[in-house]
Amino acid sequence: MNGASDMSGVQRYAYVRDGAEIYRRSFATIRAEARLDRLPGDVARVAVRMIHSCGMVDLVDDLAFTPSVVAAARAALLAGAPVLCDAQMVAAGVTRRRLPAANEILCLLGDPRVPRLAERLGTTRSAAAVDLWADRLAGSVVAVGNAPTALFRLLELVAAGAGRPAAVLGVPVGFIGAAESKQALVDDPARLEYLVVHGRRGGSAMAVAAVNAIASEED
Amino acid sequence: MNGASDMSGVQRYAYVRDGAEIYRRSFATIRAEARLDRLPGDVARVAVRMIHSCGMVDLVDDLAFTPSVVAAARAALLAGAPVLCDAQMVAAGVTRRRLPAANEILCLLGDPRVPRLAERLGTTRSAAAVDLWADRLAGSVVAVGNAPTALFRLLELVAAGAGRPAAVLGVPVGFIGAAESKQALVDDPARLEYLVVHGRRGGSAMAVAAVNAIASEED
Repeated sequence: MNGASDMSGVQRYAYVRDGAEIYRRSFATIRAEARLDRLPGDVARVAVRMIHSCGMVDLVDDLAFTPSVVAAARAALLAGAPVLCDAQMVAAGVTRRRLPAANEILCLLGDPRVPRLAERLGTTRSAAAVDLWADRLAGSVVAVGNAPTALFRLLELVAAGAGRPAAVLGVPVGFIGAAESKQALVDDPARLEYLVVHGRRGGSAMAVAAVNAIASEED
Repeated sequence: MNGASDMSGVQRYAYVRDGAEIYRRSFATIRAEARLDRLPGDVARVAVRMIHSCGMVDLVDDLAFTPSVVAAARAALLAGAPVLCDAQMVAAGVTRRRLPAANEILCLLGDPRVPRLAERLGTTRSAAAVDLWADRLAGSVVAVGNAPTALFRLLELVAAGAGRPAAVLGVPVGFIGAAESKQALVDDPARLEYLVVHGRRGGSAMAVAAVNAIASEED
């Protein structure tokens, strides 16, 4: 604590130090620059937070969604649904106090059954961990922020009769399979409620931003 | 486990399921598309992973760095330095088994002293948490993936005589202060070793990718 008390007077740079003011100005900048007008109000609110998480206002141009996705995800959370995450970073980022029903935030990537299951299925650990969601899927909110294989696997399980999630926030990132997995979710005959960012962009921070925005109407 | 055993035969979509192959193809795509030629080899390796984390090959055009930053950070990790992170998501994302000396990964944002300290300093909790790093700063690797105020505060503490980190991976994200804080790091008279992504882009996944790349030469 010495450092803290010795150096409290040090202010070399001029910058906004008020967290609430930083949020206000950030969201105002996003609302001024991003083309949010084509979005329903509840989706626009989520988009603002997703843009905030990555610093790119043109993210909105790659956004695709079902009109009721935010309402469906919000209702699920209010009803106590778990949030099923494909990566520990996604699970770590969700702000617990925003959740309306102390909802469980679950990432099973570290489950001891995963390595062997991945081997048996001939797939990634991220996809194998999705198989372990099977009995939690019905009514859940799924947040995929990392692995395209997790999103593909989810669609396979739903097609095979696994429970139907209330909403899928699908923003896996990267160069191999990411764009394809998101397109597959959009085209899927199961017609799940979805929010995706088409193309290569995505990531755990973006998935977290979507969950946090939906969890609470507080800004 | 029922779901896992019942559904192991389900393979509806054609996609690459081999994790190692996904990495190989991803990195090959990035090396083919990104303009890495102007970078020293060790920085290029880190850039590839940062690009991998966000899906954007043009990230490299906003990259700025000191020529020795990767070597300095790597040497620090080998010597057992802690990784000081501004956000829980950054700390959560670092792959422990890649670390060469079981290095401590530290985020103090949840420290009980932070709220009061932030109030006293008239700043964000993210910046206040940096004050609590004071006696760990010397020789550390700092990874800022979220808050511009944390990066500004770091520069203030170093200017006031706090310990000098071995390297600063500075990729705070956003609209208010992010670009300015990274420019401040580049221009800082303390001439720290740094790696930044200029502008609004950044984020915890990018910071994690940089740490993970530097931690191990394994791909």
